[in-house]
Amino acid sequence: MAQGRVLVVAATHGNERNAPWLLEQWRQQPELLRSNGVELQLEIGNPEALALNRRYLDRDLNRSFAPELLADASRQEREILRARALLAAHGPGGSTPCSVALDLHSTTSAMGNSLVVYGRRPADLALAAGIQARLGLPVYLHEADPAQTGFLVERWPCGLVIEVGPVPQGLVSASICRQTQLALEAALDTLAAAATGCLRLPRGLSVHLHGGSVDLPRRPDGSPAAALHPLRQHRDWIPLAAGDPLFWRADGRSQGFDSAGQRYPLARWPVFINEAAYGEKGIALSLTRRERLCCEIAWAEALSAQLQRRGAPL
Amino acid sequence: MAQGRVLVVAATHGNERNAPWLLEQWRQQPELLRSNGVELQLEIGNPEALALNRRYLDRDLNRSFAPELLADASRQEREILRARALLAAHGPGGSTPCSVALDLHSTTSAMGNSLVVYGRRPADLALAAGIQARLGLPVYLHEADPAQTGFLVERWPCGLVIEVGPVPQGLVSASICRQTQLALEAALDTLAAAATGCLRLPRGLSVHLHGGSVDLPRRPDGSPAAALHPLRQHRDWIPLAAGDPLFWRADGRSQGFDSAGQRYPLARWPVFINEAAYGEKGIALSLTRRERLCCEIAWAEALSAQLQRRGAPL
Repeated sequence: MAQGRVLVVAATHGNERNAPWLLEQWRQQPELLRSNGVELQLEIGNPEALALNRRYLDRDLNRSFAPELLADASRQEREILRARALLAAHGPGGSTPCSVALDLHSTTSAMGNSLVVYGRRPADLALAAGIQARLGLPVYLHEADPAQTGFLVERWPCGLVIEVGPVPQGLVSASICRQTQLALEAALDTLAAAATGCLRLPRGLSVHLHGGSVDLPRRPDGSPAAALHPLRQHRDWIPLAAGDPLFWRADGRSQGFDSAGQRYPLARWPVFINEAAYGEKGIALSLTRRERLCCEIAWAEALSAQLQRRGAPL
Repeated sequence: MAQGRVLVVAATHGNERNAPWLLEQWRQQPELLRSNGVELQLEIGNPEALALNRRYLDRDLNRSFAPELLADASRQEREILRARALLAAHGPGGSTPCSVALDLHSTTSAMGNSLVVYGRRPADLALAAGIQARLGLPVYLHEADPAQTGFLVERWPCGLVIEVGPVPQGLVSASICRQTQLALEAALDTLAAAATGCLRLPRGLSVHLHGGSVDLPRRPDGSPAAALHPLRQHRDWIPLAAGDPLFWRADGRSQGFDSAGQRYPLARWPVFINEAAYGEKGIALSLTRRERLCCEIAWAEALSAQLQRRGAPL
């Protein structure tokens, strides 16, 4: 049976160095990665940024895949050029087309081993459910945030982010590498099952739905007037109660979590707490609400269909 | 009694953001820092690098204070210009001279709250002993490493580094900020006592003497063939025994610590384990040996003398 090729991207952010370290090991010794017969295309997302150990050069590559940016010939930032090149090579209509993209990231937040899914495409939900059934990983379902768009995996028919932390930027941590590989192998195992039409999904998929993001308190000049409260550090996925300390001022005063004052009152589960790269985006943490979706047979069928239509324009 | 001014430097490395965050709070509310009457000069070490959230622009500022570099007019890297400017402003012969420099750093290594002292100048040892008597902080005594020279505090008559971690680069952590401030206040308390001639030193100063540094195993092309072993991560200051796992390969094999094969057989206490910024320096960790120095009255006298000779060329 023809099987769709799977794109595995490391170093979409050049200072997240665990996945590219793994990629180099797999290139040297392909037998180290249990691919379950899935044909892989291994790619460094942003080689120039990786060489400089910087997240990006001109703009965040993982916010550069919005169709309107890609189509605008006047946009010539290096990351937009790179996004176009990745699509021309390995996009669904590219020269070596891939039908699934797995984008390997790390974070300074204590996200553990986790998945990020963008929107509710059936094939993505099938893949996430398959991985969750194998490893129990939490899923951050990111949708409907006009301030955060243009993610890489959205331009492939199916794809998700494997997000592992906490680990500093610029650092290789063996335990982060091992978790990354574990999640990737669970994804490939799921894809191999889907390719043969044998993927059995669990009854439900637990997701954390994106509500919104919260910035630090700031002074009129824009400088931060507080830091994240030490009781919040490394407490991703643990729900907040009203009044829980959220921010900390240098004079020792705390500012509590005001659920009633939030625009997303049901969103109490924090994620990406104190991610170093999100300071510039004005995000101290994001808030999610927890839901359980019933898995649908149509999800698995959608994923199988992608993997069996190798190379066809999608 | 005339008292020497004390230079407090934050963001000598522009992606170590805890100290500059504190500095901004102290500038807004000077009463937040317990200075014990010591006159302070607060400075951002590398403002351009801080604005870009990068360790440095052209070269490491904290390796740019070697006299031969400073004197070589052909050297015009931005960090060398900055080093000259800092000395012209606040060096012992500068326009607003300071006799002590306290340089506030953070690290991705689990150094805890710690001090780094360069060489064995009596005034530095008195200051370190005073802080250790107050807080019990470990002291990394760095000396005689020709590969690592040109540290900022060496150009002041007295000075040391306060080094706190683990914290990712680019991130403000409330607990790292609190530890930094605690160590700085203990330093200022020590200096205030020395300025009045009332500094009483403990009987001994425990130090970890620099032996040498160990790089990752590398392939012939220079790429890392292994990562730090997960059992070594965040185990700074904990002595290694022969055979302890040190490095980890992607195929699961470990490489153990070979004390007999080391150039520094007595140096078994690791520091700066997996510091993100040291990858480019070829340092996976450094090894130290532990010693206890007897405190000498002459140390306290040397420190008092610096603090009482305000503004005089030194």
